[in-house]
Amino acid sequence: MADQIISYPQLKGFTESVFLAMGCPDADAATAATVLLSADLRGIDSHGVARLSGYVRLWEAGRVNATPSLRIIHETPSTAVVDGDSGLGLVVAPFAMKVAMDKAAAVGTGWVSVQNSNHYGIAGYHAMMALEKDMIGISMTNASPLVAPTFSVERLLGTNPICVAIPAGGEPAFVADLATTTAANGKLEILQRKNLDAPQGWIQDKDGISTVDAHALKTGGALLPLGGDREHGSHKGYALGSIVDIFSAVLSGANYGPWVPPFPAYVPMPTGMPGKGIGHFFGAMRIDAFRPADDFKEHMDNWIRRFRSAKPVEGQEKVLIPGDPEREMEGERMQKGIPLLAPVVKDLEDLAQKFAIKF
Amino acid sequence: MADQIISYPQLKGFTESVFLAMGCPDADAATAATVLLSADLRGIDSHGVARLSGYVRLWEAGRVNATPSLRIIHETPSTAVVDGDSGLGLVVAPFAMKVAMDKAAAVGTGWVSVQNSNHYGIAGYHAMMALEKDMIGISMTNASPLVAPTFSVERLLGTNPICVAIPAGGEPAFVADLATTTAANGKLEILQRKNLDAPQGWIQDKDGISTVDAHALKTGGALLPLGGDREHGSHKGYALGSIVDIFSAVLSGANYGPWVPPFPAYVPMPTGMPGKGIGHFFGAMRIDAFRPADDFKEHMDNWIRRFRSAKPVEGQEKVLIPGDPEREMEGERMQKGIPLLAPVVKDLEDLAQKFAIKF
Repeated sequence: MADQIISYPQLKGFTESVFLAMGCPDADAATAATVLLSADLRGIDSHGVARLSGYVRLWEAGRVNATPSLRIIHETPSTAVVDGDSGLGLVVAPFAMKVAMDKAAAVGTGWVSVQNSNHYGIAGYHAMMALEKDMIGISMTNASPLVAPTFSVERLLGTNPICVAIPAGGEPAFVADLATTTAANGKLEILQRKNLDAPQGWIQDKDGISTVDAHALKTGGALLPLGGDREHGSHKGYALGSIVDIFSAVLSGANYGPWVPPFPAYVPMPTGMPGKGIGHFFGAMRIDAFRPADDFKEHMDNWIRRFRSAKPVEGQEKVLIPGDPEREMEGERMQKGIPLLAPVVKDLEDLAQKFAIKF
Repeated sequence: MADQIISYPQLKGFTESVFLAMGCPDADAATAATVLLSADLRGIDSHGVARLSGYVRLWEAGRVNATPSLRIIHETPSTAVVDGDSGLGLVVAPFAMKVAMDKAAAVGTGWVSVQNSNHYGIAGYHAMMALEKDMIGISMTNASPLVAPTFSVERLLGTNPICVAIPAGGEPAFVADLATTTAANGKLEILQRKNLDAPQGWIQDKDGISTVDAHALKTGGALLPLGGDREHGSHKGYALGSIVDIFSAVLSGANYGPWVPPFPAYVPMPTGMPGKGIGHFFGAMRIDAFRPADDFKEHMDNWIRRFRSAKPVEGQEKVLIPGDPEREMEGERMQKGIPLLAPVVKDLEDLAQKFAIKF
């Protein structure tokens, strides 16, 4: 499927140029490019440069402010609410995560809910910021409504991901980055491009009946919460997605549920929106706010090694630790470059032309 | 299946007497009975008085200390680690949750990890303590290893539940209380008693192959993480159960993974245990640490009403809000009494005889 391979530095330089052309300050353009490309590096291709033109269209539609004034509008020693001033989520989120980490440095933990933002790339990038400070990082965001709660025909939730990043010692960090649906939208897009059916339990049709039609979302269907159906615990996936929505948006004053602004700029905004922009939620917990960091890391190593060495089911090589596949992919792509599909290359070439920059 | 119906006050009085007979101080016996019976009231019958004799056996085996000295052994303004001194989790957990709430009152949020505890009843009770203080409550615990990670033949995790309780205004609170497995162990026990098959995706056999045999856990099988298999996101359920394990036990110094002490007193303790007892994790976030509580509640009501009024799939009455079924059950059982199965009644009668108290 890969039609061109571009080195990380080249792709990052280009992406930065696009953000600069949109009017982002230098530091913001660099941050936004780093965050966006962390998705490509980690193999979450749906959330990386494939979306760059989408961000540009939001800016053209006046929905993204390239020079936002990021502000803390409410705070306590361990909490804050950040107003993203309609900035790129790619810039707002690292700012807010930094606030959470500063609070954690001061009082043990920090918790920040964000209003008035836009899509923030992968949840993992922001949570992983905490690792180098010996903190546990938590990141979540709400998103455009594509998911039907259990028993609902209507789409009321986004794929609402949660990432929890936990430092270890000799072992690499534990990084769980998961959409609260059976399958992430990006996986569905791959099936759509290949014109393949989806497994049962991923989607429902416009009447709420489970379907294997990977295109069902275009005709009123919906993604299903993790679990797939009631018998397999979809009410739990629905609850998790709801918690992400409430922490990200009801706590902060952003839009929630069916009112979350859609990512595609051509989709009309919902009516009667109850808040500002989309919402995120971040947490940072200092390890040594609980026990000495070295003790913790020694036990995390023990945890990781015990799980990784568990007897695997026949036909599987080994039991994986959350974050293993993405880290391996990152190592490979940092070295060998990032494979891009032809339509994505075309998209980037169009952007190069639009802004008269070199791709 | 109900063979006897006992009023809540009668069952609570009896349960309290059993804890008093074990040597618990008056206040602890009352707390333990209240926590244990909150499961019966809310319809989570597997975690209520059906387990009372199990707690007694742990006490007889010297694994439960009826008169623990609960201590904070490490703290910062927003965090603490509590040593449960081998006490009943039913007593340790409310103590630790109270510490979290006190921290939240002072600095916005409070986060408490607990070592050296025992099983704590339902996660929901502790999280819901936060509601009356206009706080969001979070509760999780690790548990006896019955669950196989994705691709693992071995059982390395418990059903590791998470509860998040969120206050609303005119509407009842949002209370999501979920095991991180496809199905809770209690649901499997019901099928076992009725000699029925389990749905695919709930359990695997001793070789890690999906099975419908509800008795497979007795022959080396395992419960499956939420998602059921890799294609349906079981790696996400596995990650969630792992996060619960790490927050509850690696942060606190309790046992984790396959080393969590088993609930049945007759099961031998694992060898090479890395910590003390089982672990829990609690969180409390003051709503007004983010925005005025009245604003938040107004939007929570709006959120709840929008979701509850979503168009339901044909054949379903309505979309439920997490906590709806349990709250309705609680109202009914508080009024009409708690139905108990014959084996549970027998168990309680045996306890009455053992301690020479009236059932």
